[in-house]
Amino acid sequence: MSTLEHPETPFLALDPHRVDTNVRRLRRHLDRLGVALRPHVKTAKSLDVAALVDGGAKGPITVSTLAEAEAFAAAGYRDILYAVGIAPQKLGRVRALRDRGVDLVVLLDSVEQASAAGVPALIEIDCDGHRGGVAAGDPVLVDIARALEHRGGEVRGVLTHAGESYFADGDEQLRAAAQHERAVAVRAAQALRAAGFAAPMVSVGSTPTAHFATDLTGVSEVRAGNFVFFDLVMAGIGVCTHADLALSVVVTVIGHRPDKGWIMTDGGWMATSRDRGTGRQRVDQAYGLVCDLDGTPYDDLLMADASQEHGILALRPGSTAKLPDLPVGARVRILPIHACATAAQHDRYHVLDPGSRALTAEWPRVRGW
Amino acid sequence: MSTLEHPETPFLALDPHRVDTNVRRLRRHLDRLGVALRPHVKTAKSLDVAALVDGGAKGPITVSTLAEAEAFAAAGYRDILYAVGIAPQKLGRVRALRDRGVDLVVLLDSVEQASAAGVPALIEIDCDGHRGGVAAGDPVLVDIARALEHRGGEVRGVLTHAGESYFADGDEQLRAAAQHERAVAVRAAQALRAAGFAAPMVSVGSTPTAHFATDLTGVSEVRAGNFVFFDLVMAGIGVCTHADLALSVVVTVIGHRPDKGWIMTDGGWMATSRDRGTGRQRVDQAYGLVCDLDGTPYDDLLMADASQEHGILALRPGSTAKLPDLPVGARVRILPIHACATAAQHDRYHVLDPGSRALTAEWPRVRGW
Repeated sequence: MSTLEHPETPFLALDPHRVDTNVRRLRRHLDRLGVALRPHVKTAKSLDVAALVDGGAKGPITVSTLAEAEAFAAAGYRDILYAVGIAPQKLGRVRALRDRGVDLVVLLDSVEQASAAGVPALIEIDCDGHRGGVAAGDPVLVDIARALEHRGGEVRGVLTHAGESYFADGDEQLRAAAQHERAVAVRAAQALRAAGFAAPMVSVGSTPTAHFATDLTGVSEVRAGNFVFFDLVMAGIGVCTHADLALSVVVTVIGHRPDKGWIMTDGGWMATSRDRGTGRQRVDQAYGLVCDLDGTPYDDLLMADASQEHGILALRPGSTAKLPDLPVGARVRILPIHACATAAQHDRYHVLDPGSRALTAEWPRVRGW
Repeated sequence: MSTLEHPETPFLALDPHRVDTNVRRLRRHLDRLGVALRPHVKTAKSLDVAALVDGGAKGPITVSTLAEAEAFAAAGYRDILYAVGIAPQKLGRVRALRDRGVDLVVLLDSVEQASAAGVPALIEIDCDGHRGGVAAGDPVLVDIARALEHRGGEVRGVLTHAGESYFADGDEQLRAAAQHERAVAVRAAQALRAAGFAAPMVSVGSTPTAHFATDLTGVSEVRAGNFVFFDLVMAGIGVCTHADLALSVVVTVIGHRPDKGWIMTDGGWMATSRDRGTGRQRVDQAYGLVCDLDGTPYDDLLMADASQEHGILALRPGSTAKLPDLPVGARVRILPIHACATAAQHDRYHVLDPGSRALTAEWPRVRGW
């Protein structure tokens, strides 16, 4: 049997028990609020993780690429939302999936896109200036809906994403972001209905707002992706604790610089990504928190810097902790800053037998576009 | 025939004519200095690009992973340096390659590693406090060499990497970094020779110092990797101009936020990486410079921000330029911040017919470890 000591480093270790706990927590919360979950598979990009998330039901999912849509459709998923504004050239692949019986819905926020689509779509609403979308009160919303129906499409409803909630400071701001996300989406749907469109789907979501919503009246579904794994950015926001993090990168010590207080590893940014998302949070975790092989964090030990295939472990600036004694060949686990980005650096997950160091399976990831 | 208008975005476009120009420039420079080039294949991770670099000679190369070593060995390369400090567990794969007739040399900087190795190795020397290595004057250098030979290894020589040259400010500092890198490596080799080791290899290199070296007396080879593609970090250091950049990411416009001065694209950090390496240079290029499909930069247009599959194009802060008129469906090319990191986000290169928009081939990349 393989264990965390066996695969050559660096590699991704996945704790399916933590995924399960994270999924149950969000499902319980959304069940209480009476709203469906449409998990975003862009974080794990894994059929196996998706099966953990919905117990094999192959229910509704959100995707970030048509490669994901195609992989999940091939596995039997039939209710797929492609939540990136549609580029007209991609409509051929969208139609091909729809012709195979997949209810693939696209996203758009302009009359140009709506005129080209010819397939069911959600209209993207901007709730916080984070990315794309039209304002809920903008009359162009109805123009887009009309253009969509005029050219053979179908107005399924509206979608918004509270992307700025990643920068919220404290529970009160998170609850406010969730409330605002809901209010904007519902208002936009009402504007469409007032113009004669049924707009049954009112889709909101981000991992922070999904967890901090207290009322989702008028919302039909919540999208969230990161919550399956969580990461240090989410812990910094306050959505989870370090003990919830399901993903880590296993690396090997390859050297020491006692003069600098450094432990060198064979895991660089190729293994962790270049994401430095905690850099603007209160506690900067650099490239990740270092744990022993059983997943217990060392006191104040960070992956402080990264080259392509080198990591530098060092104590947090100002720490009075003692650098652990980790000889050449010792392995440690790095908790990731941003799980979506770290996972994307790898082709597969090595799946842990929870509570032990045994590895029970390898789960592949979907790649490319 | 395929052109830049055909593959679905995002994808990597590679200009082989620029690679060729970049390679000729460095080879000419090193020929004048009388020293060999051992290209680092970690940037391109491509047999096809490597063939451009040495005209199909399959000469000496540097690798950053054993996956690269195995892929290049399978293609006929026989002189390979694995330039990341060796983790003892990886020695099985090293020996397997050596048993197949590949002269694979490893790197180490401790008696622990030397005692375990049993294969030819270079000893890593620290020239600027950037990463691993021992000081050139440290007596442990000879202890490492003795441990290596005692356990059946072979002291091939020394290696150093002026990693801090990436943060040099101006030509004078770059020339000084190159001179220092050379001096440290030669001094370390002399210390080994004084102790009775032949130490024939004196390996130095980084893309900046390789180009700014004015004297490489005593050096046997120069390693450089990034120079095949160059990128905005290298242009910011002054090693190349924007016109030398051989790699770009082709993306499609998917929306507009005129209220914010944003053009939205379907290329996010999944296509460019999270590398923000110009953030501490004089000119911050954010996630990259935006060019038209023919490769001409738009005035002051940056990829200002990135989500997983969304890019935001915007004018450089303070610019008085006009946002170009790029409708939904239009394609642009993003010049990368850090070519090694951007290329690593993709499985293949789409190869340009220089001077046109035609694509002539797809070249795969080596992945994983």
